Amino acid sequence: MPTTTWNRHHVISLADFTPAEYNTVLQTAASFQEVLSRRTKKVPTLQGQVVANLFFEPSTRTRSSFELAAKRLSADTLNFAASTSSMTKGETILDTAKTYLAMGTDIMVIRHKEAGVPNAIAQEMDRLGVRVSVLNAGDGQHEHPSQALLDLFTICTLIDRDRPNIEMLAGKKIAIVGDILHSRVARSNIWSLIASGAQVHLAAPPTLLPKLFAEYIYSEKTDILNGQLFLHWQLEPALQDADFVMTLRLQKERMTAHLLPSLREYHQLFGITRQKLQLCNSNVKVLHPGPVNRGVEISSDLMDDPEFSLIQSQVTSGVAVRMALLYLIGSGKT
Amino acid sequence: MPTTTWNRHHVISLADFTPAEYNTVLQTAASFQEVLSRRTKKVPTLQGQVVANLFFEPSTRTRSSFELAAKRLSADTLNFAASTSSMTKGETILDTAKTYLAMGTDIMVIRHKEAGVPNAIAQEMDRLGVRVSVLNAGDGQHEHPSQALLDLFTICTLIDRDRPNIEMLAGKKIAIVGDILHSRVARSNIWSLIASGAQVHLAAPPTLLPKLFAEYIYSEKTDILNGQLFLHWQLEPALQDADFVMTLRLQKERMTAHLLPSLREYHQLFGITRQKLQLCNSNVKVLHPGPVNRGVEISSDLMDDPEFSLIQSQVTSGVAVRMALLYLIGSGKT
Amino acid sequence: MPTTTWNRHHVISLADFTPAEYNTVLQTAASFQEVLSRRTKKVPTLQGQVVANLFFEPSTRTRSSFELAAKRLSADTLNFAASTSSMTKGETILDTAKTYLAMGTDIMVIRHKEAGVPNAIAQEMDRLGVRVSVLNAGDGQHEHPSQALLDLFTICTLIDRDRPNIEMLAGKKIAIVGDILHSRVARSNIWSLIASGAQVHLAAPPTLLPKLFAEYIYSEKTDILNGQLFLHWQLEPALQDADFVMTLRLQKERMTAHLLPSLREYHQLFGITRQKLQLCNSNVKVLHPGPVNRGVEISSDLMDDPEFSLIQSQVTSGVAVRMALLYLIGSGKT
Repeated sequence: MPTTTWNRHHVISLADFTPAEYNTVLQTAASFQEVLSRRTKKVPTLQGQVVANLFFEPSTRTRSSFELAAKRLSADTLNFAASTSSMTKGETILDTAKTYLAMGTDIMVIRHKEAGVPNAIAQEMDRLGVRVSVLNAGDGQHEHPSQALLDLFTICTLIDRDRPNIEMLAGKKIAIVGDILHSRVARSNIWSLIASGAQVHLAAPPTLLPKLFAEYIYSEKTDILNGQLFLHWQLEPALQDADFVMTLRLQKERMTAHLLPSLREYHQLFGITRQKLQLCNSNVKVLHPGPVNRGVEISSDLMDDPEFSLIQSQVTSGVAVRMALLYLIGSGKT
Repeated sequence: MPTTTWNRHHVISLADFTPAEYNTVLQTAASFQEVLSRRTKKVPTLQGQVVANLFFEPSTRTRSSFELAAKRLSADTLNFAASTSSMTKGETILDTAKTYLAMGTDIMVIRHKEAGVPNAIAQEMDRLGVRVSVLNAGDGQHEHPSQALLDLFTICTLIDRDRPNIEMLAGKKIAIVGDILHSRVARSNIWSLIASGAQVHLAAPPTLLPKLFAEYIYSEKTDILNGQLFLHWQLEPALQDADFVMTLRLQKERMTAHLLPSLREYHQLFGITRQKLQLCNSNVKVLHPGPVNRGVEISSDLMDDPEFSLIQSQVTSGVAVRMALLYLIGSGKT
Repeated sequence: MPTTTWNRHHVISLADFTPAEYNTVLQTAASFQEVLSRRTKKVPTLQGQVVANLFFEPSTRTRSSFELAAKRLSADTLNFAASTSSMTKGETILDTAKTYLAMGTDIMVIRHKEAGVPNAIAQEMDRLGVRVSVLNAGDGQHEHPSQALLDLFTICTLIDRDRPNIEMLAGKKIAIVGDILHSRVARSNIWSLIASGAQVHLAAPPTLLPKLFAEYIYSEKTDILNGQLFLHWQLEPALQDADFVMTLRLQKERMTAHLLPSLREYHQLFGITRQKLQLCNSNVKVLHPGPVNRGVEISSDLMDDPEFSLIQSQVTSGVAVRMALLYLIGSGKT
C-alpha cells in the first residue's frame, strides 16, 4: 500500500475532497487492483473487523460490490435488507444503526432513499465518540461517492494503469448526459471532475436538468467551479470534442411522472449511439453506472463494444475502489 | 474459557436451568466479552462447523447477533428466511430442519411464530440420534432464552464485569413492565430472575397481563417461585424501590385488537420516564429488548441517557452471550 | 482427490456426459464425502475464489447446498436473489451475469425459471473469452444436472461407499414416477441413468407424461436410448421388480391447471406406499428430490423409514457432489 496520510473517518460526500485525498484513493485502489489480478485475491487487512451493509433501499450491484470488497479484505460481513427487517416494527433508522454499532460493527455501508441519512448516522456516531466509520452507498438524490470514485479510477487507470492521479484529467472534456436532476451519481461526479480540472458539460432535457442546482452552483460556489461547468439543453454541444461521455441511468418511473414523452424519443435525442459519438474526440470512451436500459441511454451494440464502452471496467474498478475505501477508513482503528 | 461441566445439548427454555448452568453461561460470556475487546475479535473455536439460522419469522436484530456470534467463532453460517424458501412449496417445518441436518448443519438457531417449534425440532433430532443442537431464538409467546440470558449478563456484569454470577441478584427488586401477555422475553426473564433469588414485579394493564399464566404459576409451581413473583395492574408499586426496570416491546398490532385504548394513554400509564423513575432505587437501570417504540414504552430522552439506559449494553452483551451458547452446545461435538 | 482428466468448463446438461465424466464426479464426490465425515469439514481448495449464486427463481434447499459446498471449499460466496435485485430495474439477465463477471466471480451457479438461461450465460462467457464457469442449478423444465448427479451418487455409494461408479447400475431397473412433463430433475436423471446402462421406466398420468418428449426420444435419439427407456400410463408395470423408485415433486399449481383431478386421487394412483413397494425388488429404495408433499408423492411413514427412503442421503450427497462439481470446474483456473 502507498504510504499516505488519510484523516477522513467517514466518506459521505465528495464536496470537500482534496486532490491529495482523491490521489490516495486512486493509488490505494491501484494496489488492490494488482491484488485482484493474483490467483488468491484476498488480503488479511480487515480480519476480525465487521462491515455491515445497511441497505434501506434495495440494491444488488452496489451491495455485492461492497460485500465482495469486504470479504477480499477478510472482514466479516453482515447484510441488512430493509424488507426483512425490524424497520416495519417502528424502529428509527438511527436506532437500527446504533444496534449494529452495539453489536460491534466497525464500518457501516449505508444506502437510503432519503438524502442525508448516512450523514445523520455518521454525526450520531461521532457524537457518541465511537470509532465506527460510515460509507455513503447512495443517499436519495444527494451523492454516491464510491460510484464517482470508481468512475474516476476507471478513467485514470485507462491513462496510466499503475500510477493513476487526478491531475491526468486537467483540461479533458467530459460530458454527463441524462437524468441529472434525479442523479446522485452525477452530483458526486461533478465534485470529483471539477476537482480534477476537467471541463464538465451537462446535457439533459429541460425537465431533467436541475436549474436550481445550477443556480446554486453558479451563485454560491463559483470559486469551486472555476468556470469548469457548462449546461446544455441539447446533447450535441456536450459531445463536441468530448474525451469521455458519462451516461446516467434513466429511471423508468420518470415516464409516469410525465417528465419524458417516451423512451424512444429520449433515445433519439439523448441516447448515445455510434453515430453521435462521431462528434467526440476519436478516442472517446463511454461510461454508465448501471444497470443499463439497453437502447435507451445507450445503444445496445455500443454498450458491448470494448473499443468505446468502459461499463465492464467500471464494475471491476468498483471492487478495487471499495476495497481502498474500506481499507483507508478501517485500518486506522486500533 | 472457564472449566465447567455443561451437559445441555439444546437451549429451548430456561424453565429447568440450574444456577450452575446460568453461571457457566455468564462466565463463558465474560470470557468472550474480553475477546470482543481485542482488535481481532475472532477465535477459531467452531471452525469447520455449520450454524444454520432458520428464521421462519422475520428478524434483523436477533438474526444478525447470532450470525455475528457464529462468525466470530469461525463457524460457517447459513441463513434461511421463510419468505424466499420452499415453505411456500408445502414442506413441513420438520422436513426443512431435517434437510439442514442432512446437509451437515451442527447447530440450528430457530425462530418461529408458533410456540413449541424449536422443541419439536430438538426432540426430532434426539429421536434420530444425531448430534445436532437446537437454540431457540424465540418461539411464539413461549420463550426467548438467549434474550433473557443477555439481560442477566448485562445486569450481572454491571455489578462485576469480570466475575458475573446469578447470586448477585438475590434480593434485588426487578420490575417487568408492559405487554407481558404476549411476551416470550418476559417468560424467559421470569425463569432466570426467579432462579437468581430476585423479587420480580410484573406490571401491565389488565388486558396485557396473563391471568392464566399467573394462576398456573401460583397453583402448580409455587415451589419454584418461592414467593418471589408479584403481580400489579398499576406501574407504581412495581417501580417502588426497584433496582432494575425491564420494559417490553409493545406490538402495535395490539391496538387493532382493541387491547389498548391508544399509544398515548399507554405511555401515560405504563411508559417509563425520568419522573416515574424517581420512585425507584437511585441507581436504577432500564432495559428493553428492542426494537424500541420511542415515546411509547420509554421516553426518548431516557432511552438515550447512559446513566439509566442499558439498551446498548444489552445488544453488545447479546453477541458475547450467543457466542457462549454456541460454544457450550457446539464444542462438545467430536 | 483422484487424478483424472476433466475438460468440461461448464455443467449445463447431462445430455453429452461421458461415462468417464460421470465417474470422475462420483469419485471426486466420494473423496469429499470422506472430508465431510471429519470434524473440520473444510478444505482450502477454492480459497480466494468467488462463487456467485444467481438464483433468479426462489430456492432454499439448492441454494443452501451450493453455498455450503462453496464455503467448505473455502470460496467466498455472493448470493443474488431476484426479488431484491435490479432485475426490476430493467437490466437483462446477460448484463447481470456480466456484472458479476466484472466483479471477479469465478463460478456462477444459476437457476432460472426459463430453460436455456444458464446455457446462454455460459455461451456469452465463452464468447467473451473469460475463464468463468457456469453451473446450471435448474433451468425451467430443461435440466437440473447437480440433482441427477447427486441421485446417481446416492445410489452408487449405497452399493459401494468408497468406489462408486456408473457401471454399477447396468441392468438395474429404475422407475421414475410422477410429473415427468414439468420435471427438469427427470430430464437430467434420464440422461445419467441411460448412460449407466440401467432400464428406465417412466410412470405418470397421461396429462403429466411428455408425449412429445417420448416421441422425440424414440424417433431421433434411439441410438442413445438403446432400448432402455419405457413409458407407462400406470404405476404398477414401472414398479414391478424395480431396484430404485425415483419420485418427483408434484407442483400444487398443476391442480389449478386442471391437469389433475385431486391430490387424493393422485396419491391413490401414483403415490408410493409400503404396499405398492411390494411389487418391487425386496431391496428397493425410494428417492425424492424434495421438498416432499407428504402423503402425496409418497406416504408419510415410508418417507421416514430409513429401510426404504434415501431422501436424507440425497441431501447429504448433494453437498459432496456440489463440492466435486465446483472443484472440477473451479480448480483448473490459474
